[in-house]
Amino acid sequence: MSDVADWWRTSIIDMEPGRIELRGHPIEELIGKVSFPEMIWLMVRGDRPSAGQAKLFEAALVSAVDHGPQAPSIAAARMAVTCGLPLNNAMASAVNMLGDVHGGAGEQAVELYHFLASAGAPLSDALDDWCAARGKIVPGFGHRFHTPTDPRAPRLLELVQDSVEAGVCDGNFAEIAIQVEHELLKRAGKPIPMNIDGATAVIYAELGFAPPLARGLFCLSRSVGILAHAWEQTQQGGRNKGPTPPSYRWTFDG
Amino acid sequence: MSDVADWWRTSIIDMEPGRIELRGHPIEELIGKVSFPEMIWLMVRGDRPSAGQAKLFEAALVSAVDHGPQAPSIAAARMAVTCGLPLNNAMASAVNMLGDVHGGAGEQAVELYHFLASAGAPLSDALDDWCAARGKIVPGFGHRFHTPTDPRAPRLLELVQDSVEAGVCDGNFAEIAIQVEHELLKRAGKPIPMNIDGATAVIYAELGFAPPLARGLFCLSRSVGILAHAWEQTQQGGRNKGPTPPSYRWTFDG
Amino acid sequence: MSDVADWWRTSIIDMEPGRIELRGHPIEELIGKVSFPEMIWLMVRGDRPSAGQAKLFEAALVSAVDHGPQAPSIAAARMAVTCGLPLNNAMASAVNMLGDVHGGAGEQAVELYHFLASAGAPLSDALDDWCAARGKIVPGFGHRFHTPTDPRAPRLLELVQDSVEAGVCDGNFAEIAIQVEHELLKRAGKPIPMNIDGATAVIYAELGFAPPLARGLFCLSRSVGILAHAWEQTQQGGRNKGPTPPSYRWTFDG
Amino acid sequence: MSDVADWWRTSIIDMEPGRIELRGHPIEELIGKVSFPEMIWLMVRGDRPSAGQAKLFEAALVSAVDHGPQAPSIAAARMAVTCGLPLNNAMASAVNMLGDVHGGAGEQAVELYHFLASAGAPLSDALDDWCAARGKIVPGFGHRFHTPTDPRAPRLLELVQDSVEAGVCDGNFAEIAIQVEHELLKRAGKPIPMNIDGATAVIYAELGFAPPLARGLFCLSRSVGILAHAWEQTQQGGRNKGPTPPSYRWTFDG
Repeated sequence: MSDVADWWRTSIIDMEPGRIELRGHPIEELIGKVSFPEMIWLMVRGDRPSAGQAKLFEAALVSAVDHGPQAPSIAAARMAVTCGLPLNNAMASAVNMLGDVHGGAGEQAVELYHFLASAGAPLSDALDDWCAARGKIVPGFGHRFHTPTDPRAPRLLELVQDSVEAGVCDGNFAEIAIQVEHELLKRAGKPIPMNIDGATAVIYAELGFAPPLARGLFCLSRSVGILAHAWEQTQQGGRNKGPTPPSYRWTFDG
Repeated sequence: MSDVADWWRTSIIDMEPGRIELRGHPIEELIGKVSFPEMIWLMVRGDRPSAGQAKLFEAALVSAVDHGPQAPSIAAARMAVTCGLPLNNAMASAVNMLGDVHGGAGEQAVELYHFLASAGAPLSDALDDWCAARGKIVPGFGHRFHTPTDPRAPRLLELVQDSVEAGVCDGNFAEIAIQVEHELLKRAGKPIPMNIDGATAVIYAELGFAPPLARGLFCLSRSVGILAHAWEQTQQGGRNKGPTPPSYRWTFDG
Repeated sequence: MSDVADWWRTSIIDMEPGRIELRGHPIEELIGKVSFPEMIWLMVRGDRPSAGQAKLFEAALVSAVDHGPQAPSIAAARMAVTCGLPLNNAMASAVNMLGDVHGGAGEQAVELYHFLASAGAPLSDALDDWCAARGKIVPGFGHRFHTPTDPRAPRLLELVQDSVEAGVCDGNFAEIAIQVEHELLKRAGKPIPMNIDGATAVIYAELGFAPPLARGLFCLSRSVGILAHAWEQTQQGGRNKGPTPPSYRWTFDG
Repeated sequence: MSDVADWWRTSIIDMEPGRIELRGHPIEELIGKVSFPEMIWLMVRGDRPSAGQAKLFEAALVSAVDHGPQAPSIAAARMAVTCGLPLNNAMASAVNMLGDVHGGAGEQAVELYHFLASAGAPLSDALDDWCAARGKIVPGFGHRFHTPTDPRAPRLLELVQDSVEAGVCDGNFAEIAIQVEHELLKRAGKPIPMNIDGATAVIYAELGFAPPLARGLFCLSRSVGILAHAWEQTQQGGRNKGPTPPSYRWTFDG
């Protein structure tokens, strides 16, 4: 029996009938006492954030909740409810799509910042090395729609700056990200500014989250927009909503 | 073109290059200003909660983040990462499982409270009508593990009581839920107390959320535990983790 | 230990190192001997179909593989691969959408046929009872696109007729479905003919599959089109493919 | 309008009201005429297999349908239905788990065979190069449970041999796989024989399927076992089935 119990061992939760402890805290001492972002931090990392950390963390979570129904994940959530799926399945269909290309840029940007921070070479050379290994798309920079500027990024950087001044974080990753932005401007001859993924990655890196968590936390954040859109579509109604009205047909490449 | 644009119409988000507005608010005026729960409320409902509403809402979100790896959704998340799935796919696999039985009790409990509130008959009779139509399991009450009491429920009810005293909500649904608890005690001859679903349903009902949103909000909340467990399993390692260690075999019913 | 083994008890598969038996048959005696549809039947039901049953069953599986990228499931599969998802996750995203409205009509049609077969009342009255309980959309009949006729339905009915003549099935459910078609024509004053779901439901009912399996088998069948479209999109490329080209914007309901 | 139609262009399906053509074939000329595996091949590749190709292809599809409830995907399917999910959502939850580690070995094995076939170096050296780049686990060889031999592999290889003799395929990839097996035996001093993934990869490579399709086709095949187990669990009943009976608790790493 002990080997089955060990197979599912965890440091996150302990319980017996009538008692639930999360990361060592009785649940009834958390409810009504900690904020939702503090609870997220506690669950994922095991410790409690300072007030300043929690505030910066919360800003990142708030910033990425939605980017509209042209995003495949949001479209999927809206289509899903018209197929008769309840909200949990619609949310799953949508979160599932936040893959390497759609939801992975934040994770890759944290990896990039870590790589550049530990490269021991001028940033321009290190960036070349990154691109040689990982491809020419620099994660977290540039946006196909928001030109010249993704309005979320400068606001988030402003909050990082406030946090550095308040001693919440040291600003090293923010500095690296700004240097990348400068380098890309120099290379392209036009701005390829930090986008939402690059900016939230600065925050997650400054706060010490491992790269994969940038993706995981983005999923939590975007789940909010996914839920909102799924629910709005539920109220709008519709059956088997496809990408275009039924009168449209696709081109057949015979 | 306009019919395609209309096909994806939404009141949630508007944008053009360099501008994103959520529910009419420029995103940069929300980031760092509203809490994550306030953002969730704004996105899902379109308006902003009062401070008291936000506080009560946040308590519900905090309360339901995890119930351990024996819950099928959490187990699925942990197994998924050992199959090579990144966190978004692991989270989707898990949220998908929060169906009628696993994640739908809160939604059903809000429906129950609405039904009882508008029944125009003594609660005992109305409860009989509900069970005749919907089955004998009363959603939101009783727990197969936490006997006699789910520690989350009394703490949440305490916060509802505070909110009623502060004029945040009127307490009508809390009153109904407590009457259901009494009625079930009388019928069973033993406590079948309110559980986490019944208690969060009180809060969501008091705050005016439609029943399906109780499920949707539970999915947001439980996604936190799902992420935490998926990440812990990632760090523990393992390949193709099944429900039991490889040395166990199932019984074959020949 | 035995209770864990019992918890996962199954009649489907038995194995030990070097031996795999499916429904009592050593796997190496099935490979290269049974057809894929025969294997599906064996796995789901536990027995082996006759040659005639297997042939009719195979026709149903072949008939429902695809209905184009305007179906939300197919669109989801194509969008998913452009988000960086491998084929398994893209297929999952798509199959997930085959819910009550999109993939459940076959299951509901089998339920309808069973209901009418055991109603003990004239079909017209029984159909009224069904609609009173289940809503006015009669599952398996009518098509928003294929007017007047879904080309798959008459072909499948032709094969059912052949099977009845060959003694493979008795045709009772086919007869009921045809009567429903006549009744709907009479009521609407225009054809509301059997569609793919109504016709495959006839086959699954004739072959003795329980209603939920009509949905499950449809998922197997449609997975083929899902895979084909996901793969074609992979080869076409694209990143974060939304429902419309990036130049299109949605209407904002301010 | 044309750009939206172009956005969803496909060579797989063309239709107008009353007409459906798949890969240029009217659907009613396929139903009852082609086998299910032939339909799969046609949909995915666009052409029709010869009888010999179809037979070998079918054997691969039949061979991989199930490996029992200790596989995380099968366990997930069984748990999912007890959470209240219908079969489509249960199947999606399970197929989603067939990721790089659980369902990707076939794809990786086809890549390995292609790599070795085009290496222009002795197989032993080329295998070293592969492992240096991709890691020490050689995909498609060895099995943690089936020692010494996975019973599916020799049977599949026998059918490949028959197909080579019949001129259906040339056997080059089978030859490479057998050499890998010999090389691994030499290196390990004990058999690390070809497993189901390595053997089906031989077939898919011999038949000219691109590597990612080995994963996609495995998903089709395993979906059969997933459906069978989800359905069996539905009939067994249960609510919120976790990995172990409720009486078991996990070890808490305090």
